[in-house]
Amino acid sequence: MKLDDNNSIPLYLQLKNTIKGLIESGEIQKGEKIPSEHELCKKYDVSRITVRNALAELEDEGYLIKKQGKGTFATKPKLFRPLEDSVGFSESCRNAGMESSSIVLKREVLPLDERMKDILKLSDRDQVLYIQRLRLADGEPLMIENNYYSYAKYGFLMNEPLTGSLYELLAEKKGIICDRSLKTVITVTTASGDMVRLLQVPIGAPLFVMDGIMGDSEGNPVHYSLQYIVGEKYSFVR
Amino acid sequence: MKLDDNNSIPLYLQLKNTIKGLIESGEIQKGEKIPSEHELCKKYDVSRITVRNALAELEDEGYLIKKQGKGTFATKPKLFRPLEDSVGFSESCRNAGMESSSIVLKREVLPLDERMKDILKLSDRDQVLYIQRLRLADGEPLMIENNYYSYAKYGFLMNEPLTGSLYELLAEKKGIICDRSLKTVITVTTASGDMVRLLQVPIGAPLFVMDGIMGDSEGNPVHYSLQYIVGEKYSFVR
Repeated sequence: MKLDDNNSIPLYLQLKNTIKGLIESGEIQKGEKIPSEHELCKKYDVSRITVRNALAELEDEGYLIKKQGKGTFATKPKLFRPLEDSVGFSESCRNAGMESSSIVLKREVLPLDERMKDILKLSDRDQVLYIQRLRLADGEPLMIENNYYSYAKYGFLMNEPLTGSLYELLAEKKGIICDRSLKTVITVTTASGDMVRLLQVPIGAPLFVMDGIMGDSEGNPVHYSLQYIVGEKYSFVR
Repeated sequence: MKLDDNNSIPLYLQLKNTIKGLIESGEIQKGEKIPSEHELCKKYDVSRITVRNALAELEDEGYLIKKQGKGTFATKPKLFRPLEDSVGFSESCRNAGMESSSIVLKREVLPLDERMKDILKLSDRDQVLYIQRLRLADGEPLMIENNYYSYAKYGFLMNEPLTGSLYELLAEKKGIICDRSLKTVITVTTASGDMVRLLQVPIGAPLFVMDGIMGDSEGNPVHYSLQYIVGEKYSFVR
């Protein structure tokens, strides 16, 4: 097979799109080792640098993963989450052509706590609603989400299934539009303890930690959120 | 010592600020183990939840680091990098009260390469200038920066010391204002090979990977940049 030298699209992009197509169509299966650089050069009649460029972008976009000393393997594309708007998990999945699902792990009413009172602007008589969910994309665990709400305002979430999009639920049921991130901090950590089991990653696997306060369109805090996200399956873009 | 119950500032914030002050003033040294939750409760006459809240925020902000089974230790605050504007490394350091420095590791003129030609909008007769730097905050390695430029336009960087802020240099010497990020992708990886040595982290330590294209105020690409950042010392905020 030969790529088109007279095409205005650079050769590396042609090759990239070819390989991407093979992965998306399932001709190259997830977890399958792809041919070596040398083999790809021969197969597509291109230079080593063209192959490297194509593989570099496919790796950036999460279609390929290099394993040291073992070769390069096809993987599912990473979930790209835009940094600018407040796109929720369900919407990110939809944009990536993946199906999102959620498992509720914990739902607890906690006593009022100074820090949450401060962050969520709670009254003295309020309590804190804590909901922990495991969120999956195409059936694979992607993040553990810990959300903290005013119980007075969001207590009804105790009785909702919460398997789908939270933001869509809040919009439908209460007309609350979550579209203003009041704070976002992204750090990294490594998986240990329960996270290893829930996220199905090895001990020490890198995780994004996203610590944030989501606000409604009036700027009132909706929830404080602490997410642990599988690093290998995720990227933030702007 | 007692915190002020009648103060309008929540107790956990009073405690947080007290501990932060001790770290910033050097009374608690970097790397020093801080008292246990139980000891802090007794010392400041506050509840366990107040102590936990204070420690949680200090951990979030990088003043403390919890080591499983070993206790909680004082550390340097993380470098916070705003996600919205195109604040450079030197400026982030300055904002955090740290001194930035840089070591140039590589400076090479590379043959024109399809991918860089495409990304940097180079002409057929151009070449690629590749500069790799180790960037340090208060003398500690924080990131490896790999920048790719048009050699025709930025070749003069071959002869600059490049130990300070690149953006300030471009503004002063050429009137180029780098203020428009054309692309930013943040992923994570783990340290291996050269990175371990250069960044002085253990094998497998989580690193942020920041892959981006910086543009000037007219939207022309200035450089393609690939940064490997020590996860433990860094956070992105919005």
